[in-house]
Amino acid sequence: METRPVLYIGNKNYSSWSLRAWLGLKVAGIDFEERLVPLRTDEWAAKAPVFSPTAKVPAFYDGTKTIWEALGILEYIADSRPDTLLWPLDIDVRAIARAVSLEMHGGFSALRTHMPMNCRQSLPGLGRADGVDKDIARIAGIFKMCRTQYGQGGDFLFGDFSIADAMYAPVVTRFKTYGVDLDPVGNAYMQAILDLPAMKEWYADAAAEEWVIQESEVK
Amino acid sequence: METRPVLYIGNKNYSSWSLRAWLGLKVAGIDFEERLVPLRTDEWAAKAPVFSPTAKVPAFYDGTKTIWEALGILEYIADSRPDTLLWPLDIDVRAIARAVSLEMHGGFSALRTHMPMNCRQSLPGLGRADGVDKDIARIAGIFKMCRTQYGQGGDFLFGDFSIADAMYAPVVTRFKTYGVDLDPVGNAYMQAILDLPAMKEWYADAAAEEWVIQESEVK
Repeated sequence: METRPVLYIGNKNYSSWSLRAWLGLKVAGIDFEERLVPLRTDEWAAKAPVFSPTAKVPAFYDGTKTIWEALGILEYIADSRPDTLLWPLDIDVRAIARAVSLEMHGGFSALRTHMPMNCRQSLPGLGRADGVDKDIARIAGIFKMCRTQYGQGGDFLFGDFSIADAMYAPVVTRFKTYGVDLDPVGNAYMQAILDLPAMKEWYADAAAEEWVIQESEVK
Repeated sequence: METRPVLYIGNKNYSSWSLRAWLGLKVAGIDFEERLVPLRTDEWAAKAPVFSPTAKVPAFYDGTKTIWEALGILEYIADSRPDTLLWPLDIDVRAIARAVSLEMHGGFSALRTHMPMNCRQSLPGLGRADGVDKDIARIAGIFKMCRTQYGQGGDFLFGDFSIADAMYAPVVTRFKTYGVDLDPVGNAYMQAILDLPAMKEWYADAAAEEWVIQESEVK
């Protein structure tokens, strides 16, 4: 009997890193069980150090080993299940897709701090603190560059859906929540992300979650 | 006539991200030209936005395209030159190596802030600000876990040198500079990194650099 792999995630309304891994697995068609552990609860404090060596979400248990870091989980799927086509097939394009994914993985700290993911809220105009506009401008540049140079074969950054889209999906939700408008190319790309059936499922689940975190505390 | 690829880096004494890419390329045996652009100079301000879309180092120009982010550059080498064996060959071990590399790429902000890389200084006891001990403990845990579970075939985190070692090499220099002592397994690993011919070359170059940055400004 084969065990389904397990993805540990935090609250869907708030946990942007969870969304990255979850969305990539969903679009790739991976059959997995999701286990949501609510952030900042006693349950979280008890379980997080057990399900991940970093005590953070997401973490992926495939039956024999645990993999952590959202991008690490998706790299593993791309590596072990190449039929999922999670990276662009062209080696030069793949290099660009990894570079923009890594830029998201380690950067945009102003945006991440001042525009925390909050799927069920609409807060247009909020979050415009120091450094946020610069992050928004760079991300708009990435969306436009990728869509125009590499995205002609589809609706996503590199045409077909790739790990790069999974990495930027939480940013798209932030731009929606905080009312950030881009150029037409960027706006059309954001709509393509929001129209993904998996994204609609995530939003519905986020809206149905119990309100376990004080909004003011969430960063 | 084939052009040698170019790696743009910052000051060797200070630029930890430059070291990651440079060391990986060196140990992989890639023939490349290094172009050092001193940080915080007029030359930097003029050139950085040209050599990289992020105006940061490192950036790698292979003759036709630019790749950015240290880990992105090394992923590209592993992808395009698999003979360099920059990732562990076993797919499960490679997943762990990527996870610890990504943990470095996006984390340990207290350590990175309070113990900036400074190869030519010895500052034992300094830098022990809030959060730094926790970062040190986690890194010590990574070194021990990797060396004992995966490192038996060699002196590095996963036996032979891999991208994970390139990612942690600047941390090793920090532990040396700020006098951070680990357990015997961790200390032996740090010595293996410092004994690499490429690391000795980097240190010698760092010591010979002009002192262009006020130490107090460096983070």
